[in-house]
Amino acid sequence: MSDTDVSTMRLHHVGYVVRDLAAATAIYSSLGFEVGQPFAVPEQHIVAVTIHAGSGWVELIQPTDPEGPIAAYMAKKGEGVHHVAFQVDDIEAKLVELKAAGVQLIDETPRTGAHNWRIAFIHPKACNGVLTEIVQVPE
Amino acid sequence: MSDTDVSTMRLHHVGYVVRDLAAATAIYSSLGFEVGQPFAVPEQHIVAVTIHAGSGWVELIQPTDPEGPIAAYMAKKGEGVHHVAFQVDDIEAKLVELKAAGVQLIDETPRTGAHNWRIAFIHPKACNGVLTEIVQVPE
Repeated sequence: MSDTDVSTMRLHHVGYVVRDLAAATAIYSSLGFEVGQPFAVPEQHIVAVTIHAGSGWVELIQPTDPEGPIAAYMAKKGEGVHHVAFQVDDIEAKLVELKAAGVQLIDETPRTGAHNWRIAFIHPKACNGVLTEIVQVPE
Repeated sequence: MSDTDVSTMRLHHVGYVVRDLAAATAIYSSLGFEVGQPFAVPEQHIVAVTIHAGSGWVELIQPTDPEGPIAAYMAKKGEGVHHVAFQVDDIEAKLVELKAAGVQLIDETPRTGAHNWRIAFIHPKACNGVLTEIVQVPE
C-alpha cells in the first residue's frame, strides 16, 4: 500500500478533552502553537479550538453537557487524549474496507464534523484502546 | 508564528502502549497500515514498531520490563495513547523557549530515541494530561 491508495491512513489530528478551554488554549499558546478562535459544535455538546500543527492538527475539546459522553469520558479518565484521527481520500471506500476486514465500527456511514470534515469513528476495542477517527477533508 | 519558524510544533507521531506487540501489529495491519518490523530499544525496556501514516507515524510500544515506567503506565491506564510527539527543527532552541515560558520539562536536554530521533519530553502536567514529546529528526 502506498500513499497514493485512496484508503491509506495519514495522521491528521489528535483530539484532547479539557476541562477549561480558555485555560487549555493559553497553555497551548505557551507551548508555541498558533491558537485560533474557539467555536461551538452544539450537536456534539462541545466547544473546541483547532490548532494548526504542521500538516496535522490538535483539537482541544471542552464538553458543554455534563451528562454527555465526552464529559463522562473525562470524569473517568481525566483530561488527555480523547481520539486520534487519520485522513483518507475516500471515507466510504475506507469504511467498506474496514467492515470487510471485520473491524468494529462505531459509524458505518460518515457524519459531518467540525470544519465540514466528513468523519467516522472506529471502536477503541478494535484499536488497542484508542478511539480512532477517520476523516475525509472536502476539497 | 509560521511553519518556517524553527520552533514551530508539527504533529509527528502518536505512541501507543500495547500488551502484545505481535497482536497489535496484526490489528494495525487490518486497519490498512503498512506495518514494518519490530525492533528492541533495550535502554528503554521496550520493543516497538513504527508505522508510516502519511507524513506522520504511529509507534506501537510493548514494555519488556514489568517493573518499568511504561508497564506501570499500562497497568494504571490500560492500553492506549502513551504520548504525542511534535517535530521541531531545532530541539535545543525549542527547549530553551519552553523553559523560558515556564513550561515544566521532563528532559531539559535532548536524548536519542528510536531511529536516532533526538527527543525530549514535556511533563503531562504542562499539557493537559498528555505526555508530550518534541523530536528533531536528523537530516
